[in-house]
Amino acid sequence: MTSARERTFDVVVLGAGSTGENLADIVVKGGLSAVLVEPDLVGGECSYWACMPSKALLRGTEVLTEARSVDGARQAVTGRQDVAATLARRDTFTHGWDDSSQVSWVESAGIALVRGAGRLDGERAVVVGTGDGDLRLTARHAVGVCTGSEPALPPVDGLADVEPWMPRDATSAKEAPGRLLVLGGGYVGCEMAFAWQALGSRVTVLEMGDRLLAGAERAASDAVAASLRERDVDVRLGTGVTAARRDGAEVVVTTADGELRGDRLLVAVGRRARTRDLGVETVGLEPGRYLDVDDSMQVRGRPWLYGVGDVNGRRQLTHMGKYQARQAGAAIVARARGEEVPLDDWSPFAATADRVATPSVVFTSPQVASVGLTSAEAAQQGRPHRVVEYPIGQVAGASLFTDGYEGTAIAVVDAEREVLLGATFVGAGVAELLQAATVAVVGEVPISRLWHAVPAYPTMNEVWLRLLETWRDSGADGEVG
Amino acid sequence: MTSARERTFDVVVLGAGSTGENLADIVVKGGLSAVLVEPDLVGGECSYWACMPSKALLRGTEVLTEARSVDGARQAVTGRQDVAATLARRDTFTHGWDDSSQVSWVESAGIALVRGAGRLDGERAVVVGTGDGDLRLTARHAVGVCTGSEPALPPVDGLADVEPWMPRDATSAKEAPGRLLVLGGGYVGCEMAFAWQALGSRVTVLEMGDRLLAGAERAASDAVAASLRERDVDVRLGTGVTAARRDGAEVVVTTADGELRGDRLLVAVGRRARTRDLGVETVGLEPGRYLDVDDSMQVRGRPWLYGVGDVNGRRQLTHMGKYQARQAGAAIVARARGEEVPLDDWSPFAATADRVATPSVVFTSPQVASVGLTSAEAAQQGRPHRVVEYPIGQVAGASLFTDGYEGTAIAVVDAEREVLLGATFVGAGVAELLQAATVAVVGEVPISRLWHAVPAYPTMNEVWLRLLETWRDSGADGEVG
Repeated sequence: MTSARERTFDVVVLGAGSTGENLADIVVKGGLSAVLVEPDLVGGECSYWACMPSKALLRGTEVLTEARSVDGARQAVTGRQDVAATLARRDTFTHGWDDSSQVSWVESAGIALVRGAGRLDGERAVVVGTGDGDLRLTARHAVGVCTGSEPALPPVDGLADVEPWMPRDATSAKEAPGRLLVLGGGYVGCEMAFAWQALGSRVTVLEMGDRLLAGAERAASDAVAASLRERDVDVRLGTGVTAARRDGAEVVVTTADGELRGDRLLVAVGRRARTRDLGVETVGLEPGRYLDVDDSMQVRGRPWLYGVGDVNGRRQLTHMGKYQARQAGAAIVARARGEEVPLDDWSPFAATADRVATPSVVFTSPQVASVGLTSAEAAQQGRPHRVVEYPIGQVAGASLFTDGYEGTAIAVVDAEREVLLGATFVGAGVAELLQAATVAVVGEVPISRLWHAVPAYPTMNEVWLRLLETWRDSGADGEVG
Repeated sequence: MTSARERTFDVVVLGAGSTGENLADIVVKGGLSAVLVEPDLVGGECSYWACMPSKALLRGTEVLTEARSVDGARQAVTGRQDVAATLARRDTFTHGWDDSSQVSWVESAGIALVRGAGRLDGERAVVVGTGDGDLRLTARHAVGVCTGSEPALPPVDGLADVEPWMPRDATSAKEAPGRLLVLGGGYVGCEMAFAWQALGSRVTVLEMGDRLLAGAERAASDAVAASLRERDVDVRLGTGVTAARRDGAEVVVTTADGELRGDRLLVAVGRRARTRDLGVETVGLEPGRYLDVDDSMQVRGRPWLYGVGDVNGRRQLTHMGKYQARQAGAAIVARARGEEVPLDDWSPFAATADRVATPSVVFTSPQVASVGLTSAEAAQQGRPHRVVEYPIGQVAGASLFTDGYEGTAIAVVDAEREVLLGATFVGAGVAELLQAATVAVVGEVPISRLWHAVPAYPTMNEVWLRLLETWRDSGADGEVG
């Protein structure tokens, strides 16, 4: 494949992560030809260094925590979690960082693959540096940039020199560090704090803000902080790091509280667009910035260029990248056929859910699952709304799930249209509760209709009934049923 | 309260199970007075002898099965489930069969309570036999019959004489029988087979039909049978019992295969209306039959009489009884106010979901969660539909959940309106996946909109995306996203 010096495809996709794979798949299914350009592993961040390994690290601890919380089952859990087996299980999910199964899928899907770093070289053109010299790819219809994002290193004195763990290192580590310092209390910092504390590390989380999981409902932030502390994680809020240095094998960070020492320092303070070495300047864009796109992921002013997934900065989540890929792919196919591509809300070409109904799950203990607007966002947007809360532990299904179940469900309801704007669930095992909220938000199902969506008894989903009752009883009219 | 010989209320409710409690609560919230009449425990079947104890018996086994299926966690499960602690946990959910907390709730809700057996005595009148003689209750607006159902004893020679376990005995037993024979492979028989096998019994299930869980999708029936057999439960399909007798401490049943012996025989072959001793003949109805009601639960031809919950034979599930109570309660309140009570689909007074979207979960291993029409029901009703299936184990979230996850998702889609008619999920931990399907069915959310209801990665709910893709790729037009 790399012997040809020039090749032409309908669509050239830079980056073979889950977003790029989905984009290429959709356009090929639509009858176009496509090539994926990838310098690293096919399958991308999620498969090898993010979602999959992190959740694999967390799952064993999660299920044991549940088993220990059910009297009768608890007595069977007399041993300890096997750290080596847990790490080995993680490695099965990353296929030992070997992408041959993904490469096979790409081939079976009829997608071409070029291994190497691709750079834009003017309109509709990409140059790939391969082992066999440069290859020039030309796109008849579209170039999709799906290069994702990369972790940011904050401007802290000496930080780069201490060889910190970046998120990839934390998810792929072969052993638990003795003392792990975590810089940043976002979802990566929180998940990795839970994971490595359970696998044997002594963990400290340093967060500049006044709470963990900054964008979440306050109740979620507080529950996760409390749970980390119960597990002897040292959570320090309002704690910035001003300097970092090495002292022999130790990493030393300076905070307002004084110095802290650890064996490893994980930096998890956000991400930035991976557009620095992409040649975007050859098409008049600024390297290092997110691509500015419309709802079909078309880069504004460059109708042949699409920025899909993390690289556009809309929503940096695997499932939203894949969603954007489906919408953008449909748009590319339709435009190639000369068809209309309306971008009104919920059209098959528009990633409307990016704005209205983005789900996310943080796999901490408790889990935090949310979709749509938080109460703060609804207030910020000036939406007439009411916030309805219910303690999930009072639902029979939750009390059966674990003894002493603690959790919270929060619904944000549009007070005029009487539809759900968003929901957050905090608690053990709530990840799978989220999809019902997502369907309700996306489907704009009126509250009056949701009363007919009866939750099965006794499942945790009965919290839906409690939220509706709380909504009804907190209303001005006190109207029944 | 029992000293008065006659009392008048707006609403008289026979039966203080969860249905009766909800009916009384709704009408009291609507400004009416109500009295509950109950000869047995306040809280009813579900709290003491059905949902709660059965699920409490099953939960410990379930979570240990999950823990043993996650490498790394498995190694910590070196002990055995504590049977005594499991039974004691079950007893905490039934409050040791003491209803004082429920009685407190009834009082706090402003509902009157009369303990004793109530019988209709002509229009709007109920006579209750109390320890202090008869009390006559008159209803200004409505009498609600919420007496539920009782297990049926099939006409098998000698069956009544062997003192079989009925479902109440199976959920409240203080120890595991050595050999348990289960007559009936419905959800009670299956759940109790799993529960007692795990707690030490040697279980045989005898089912006359050709499969377990007769109304479920065939894949669910087969998966549950296979799983029971893997656990050394002797599942005999197509096996009727023609006679039963005692032989010393043993129970002996006769089948076409010969005789089978056990220490206990559980009879779980369905239920019948609890209307035999209710005085329904005083208002021209036939004792022992289900009450024939409209969508507001009003008994046809008797506008003051409501049959709510199991007693009307529509859907015999706790959550549907509560749902019917909400709809009937709203109708009673509105009619008392002289307001219109439209009974068109999805009105706040109509239990439309009984017909269209009844969810149910069988808490076996695997769980079976279903809502709306099965493929067989859609075919039977002559609805133009397509059935879409996907193996849940291929979803990343499921493979993280347990090693070697096996499960199936089945969606029944209206081929003309392109909305979901029903769904079934079979697998570990699928109970909480159901509500999303219920919202989609009830909300009549078009498939084109469901594409925007992005499941969070990597949760099991990603099966929604796979079902949509399978639907798309199995379509005639092969249209993309």
